[in-house]
Amino acid sequence: MNDSWLNKVNWAQDGLVPAVTQDSASGRVLTVAWMNREALKLTAATGEAHYWSRSRKKLWHKGEESGHVQKVKSIRLDCDQDVVLLEVEQVGGIACHTGRESCFFNRYEPDTTGETAGGEWVAIDPVLKDPKEIYRK
Amino acid sequence: MNDSWLNKVNWAQDGLVPAVTQDSASGRVLTVAWMNREALKLTAATGEAHYWSRSRKKLWHKGEESGHVQKVKSIRLDCDQDVVLLEVEQVGGIACHTGRESCFFNRYEPDTTGETAGGEWVAIDPVLKDPKEIYRK
Repeated sequence: MNDSWLNKVNWAQDGLVPAVTQDSASGRVLTVAWMNREALKLTAATGEAHYWSRSRKKLWHKGEESGHVQKVKSIRLDCDQDVVLLEVEQVGGIACHTGRESCFFNRYEPDTTGETAGGEWVAIDPVLKDPKEIYRK
Repeated sequence: MNDSWLNKVNWAQDGLVPAVTQDSASGRVLTVAWMNREALKLTAATGEAHYWSRSRKKLWHKGEESGHVQKVKSIRLDCDQDVVLLEVEQVGGIACHTGRESCFFNRYEPDTTGETAGGEWVAIDPVLKDPKEIYRK
């Protein structure tokens, strides 16, 4: 197999690169996860996003439990060849394990007192589906 | 200063988190860089994106040389509190040091022979301005 394109990725010492995943319709950034060589190869071969789970130390076919797979529309690589960007169709419209569309549901809100760089994170996006419903077997 | 919101970020052992930066108008992902606590604090305080340059080992006010600063519209944090997402207005319309709009100008093109997971990266986005013009003093 001609997989020389995989060698052009600047894998870090731990063999991983960050992978940003964006909804191709809405443009929302859904998730940032990690890929090793095998995850990127499987993503290209199957047309569905695969990542490396750093916590579980195993390959992770996104949606394998929830059914919320990510159908890949394009795979891009940045100028330093060390970050991957996927454009996907997010099946079910839910990418986050909390039941939200995107993992980036916390927004920084500055202090209303105008104190410089004071503020807080506020969860501003709705939970679309109870995680208990998503992950029950 | 009430900077307890900075403590809620799960800074990695090296004190950094990835920061994805997206154009608020086009939705394009422009850059992925790294932030330490000081970079995030300065980003919030000044309204312009600041990062930590891992190669130069110093704080980096994006656009300090090129003038292509990023005016921050929102700052978000993901469910694991270990990735930051900025929505910005990209001054000059160029985020990449190669003179392109986005750093993600390489797209994976599968082999036309249909070989599984064979293919190549192709630079598909135009250079909008010669880097020599951008960075001359």
